[in-house]
Amino acid sequence: MVFLCKKVAVIGAGSWGSVLANILVMNGEKVKIWSRRQEQVDELNLEHTNKAYLSDVKLSEKLVASNNLEEVLKESELVLLAVPTKAMREMSHKVGLLIEKLDLHPVIVHASKGLELETHKRISEIISEEISQEYAAGIVALSGPSHAEEVACHDLTLITAASSDLQAAKSVQKIFMNSYFRVYTNSDIIGVELGAAFKNIIALGAGALNGLGYGDDAKAALMTRGLAEIARLGIALGADPLTFIGLSGVGDLIVTCTSVHSRNWRAGNQLGKGAKVEDVVNNMGMVIEGLTTVKAAYELAKSRKIEMPITEAIYQVVYQGEEIKTAIEDLMTREGKSEEETF
Amino acid sequence: MVFLCKKVAVIGAGSWGSVLANILVMNGEKVKIWSRRQEQVDELNLEHTNKAYLSDVKLSEKLVASNNLEEVLKESELVLLAVPTKAMREMSHKVGLLIEKLDLHPVIVHASKGLELETHKRISEIISEEISQEYAAGIVALSGPSHAEEVACHDLTLITAASSDLQAAKSVQKIFMNSYFRVYTNSDIIGVELGAAFKNIIALGAGALNGLGYGDDAKAALMTRGLAEIARLGIALGADPLTFIGLSGVGDLIVTCTSVHSRNWRAGNQLGKGAKVEDVVNNMGMVIEGLTTVKAAYELAKSRKIEMPITEAIYQVVYQGEEIKTAIEDLMTREGKSEEETF
Repeated sequence: MVFLCKKVAVIGAGSWGSVLANILVMNGEKVKIWSRRQEQVDELNLEHTNKAYLSDVKLSEKLVASNNLEEVLKESELVLLAVPTKAMREMSHKVGLLIEKLDLHPVIVHASKGLELETHKRISEIISEEISQEYAAGIVALSGPSHAEEVACHDLTLITAASSDLQAAKSVQKIFMNSYFRVYTNSDIIGVELGAAFKNIIALGAGALNGLGYGDDAKAALMTRGLAEIARLGIALGADPLTFIGLSGVGDLIVTCTSVHSRNWRAGNQLGKGAKVEDVVNNMGMVIEGLTTVKAAYELAKSRKIEMPITEAIYQVVYQGEEIKTAIEDLMTREGKSEEETF
Repeated sequence: MVFLCKKVAVIGAGSWGSVLANILVMNGEKVKIWSRRQEQVDELNLEHTNKAYLSDVKLSEKLVASNNLEEVLKESELVLLAVPTKAMREMSHKVGLLIEKLDLHPVIVHASKGLELETHKRISEIISEEISQEYAAGIVALSGPSHAEEVACHDLTLITAASSDLQAAKSVQKIFMNSYFRVYTNSDIIGVELGAAFKNIIALGAGALNGLGYGDDAKAALMTRGLAEIARLGIALGADPLTFIGLSGVGDLIVTCTSVHSRNWRAGNQLGKGAKVEDVVNNMGMVIEGLTTVKAAYELAKSRKIEMPITEAIYQVVYQGEEIKTAIEDLMTREGKSEEETF
């Protein structure tokens, strides 16, 4: 079999974009990575590091960086979008115009997690609105339990490549998979993207319980009942219930709720210890995705009359000044339920 | 409303039996607890402690202990069996004879986790074979993410009361529920009991990964794919797939795989660090449920042609002398799969 390497454009040189780009280089593909900042481009090309995001990692010398988007996209057969959720619409629009101009037909993959603040739209919906509709069905979401730092050290990681177009998902599986990075396909991109976004709400709650001094039982209970309610909303939005038992559901939930490295967990932990929301936001000095996602989920649940007691409690703490202790007491003293009311 | 307290017999005074008995006393019920050992009975009645199992816990003065089984069972309206799996058949047989002799019609609940070694039968199957068949449908399994020590300290805990007979499950929910112990009902007792048993296999694996030095991604991946395969076997044995997303499934899995207090996790951790199986068994000095359950699951999977790669790998390490590192490499280098092959 003749092995033909693929030309890949990675858009966004944060920790995850850089690590995924590096995997593809190591797997034998020809990869260019785009960053807005010339300084970072130079560091990637000359030092083969990305210290602001990955302090101790040496990247491949074959990874080529540029801040010229057209240059990076030229001849690409696969485009990986790895920019923050709030930059996704603008970046997709620019990429879409260049794909048209350059007459490209790449597989489009994204590796971002979250919902658009104003519209509550999923990442692939944003992309398909901004890049030609030709791509709407073929977009692939790469998602699952993954710390970029661990993948960079070749720690074992399993993730999912989700798309309505199974062939597109399989091509992504094939190009990324190696001995430490194992990729599963999944046809339920709705469930995969929603699980990845909503899990940050539960991570806030798990952090809060820790800050309040509760133990392992309480954490496991919150994660389980949290999973049940995000699945409930997900199903109402078109997801397959079983996706929430998968890598992008329970898998990502476990990593996010049990790692002190999770930003959302740390924010919740501070809230649990009695910090004010505005102080937590200021202390963290970066985006806490869960704080915006909890608002989106709360509004989506209200409009669809879906019961989400944990999300509602966190919403009340974050946006309505409810005492966190009271919110938990309210949760525990609800009338007895059946687990099967979940779905 | 007139509150009539219920007469409850708790059979087994280990940590979990004692804590559950204490909850019922505090909830206003009249509870007797049985222990084989006179010394423990005296400690419970005179000191109101059970130091061998719960070092720092003061139990209610109203909890009455006895080593006379008939005395404990007399007039009971609810019998809670909380003995180790390997003692369940013998104890159920004795309880069954006395229930008949005393002409009792109690709700039968058990709070044990595991499968019978020789027969691979679930706890409620063992009980229904030994106590009159009248009870076969009404047995309730109380299961979920719960450390006895945390419940004893009134930490928040959520568990499930599962029975084919919803009224029986609801009566158990009602009698146990309070402000720190929240009980859900579930009609899928097969799934609840299987989840509780099989999760110990995955805990062995999670411990092994830790012992080998792998990180959070690998742990979350193992737990997720482990959950998928135990669900796969569970479904073949008659369970509802969605039960595995509940408290007795993912909930108990999380507590068992992320707590260093879990015996099975610690056993796996020692294996991962290179210890021999026989040394681990000797070191631990107590039953490591996962080591017998992995054999049961392996044999059940083989006879039903269910794919369980993680269970198979652990079986090979424990029973066939396979190197643990090799077993993991084999797992990672399997051909690419779809997450949806799970069910």
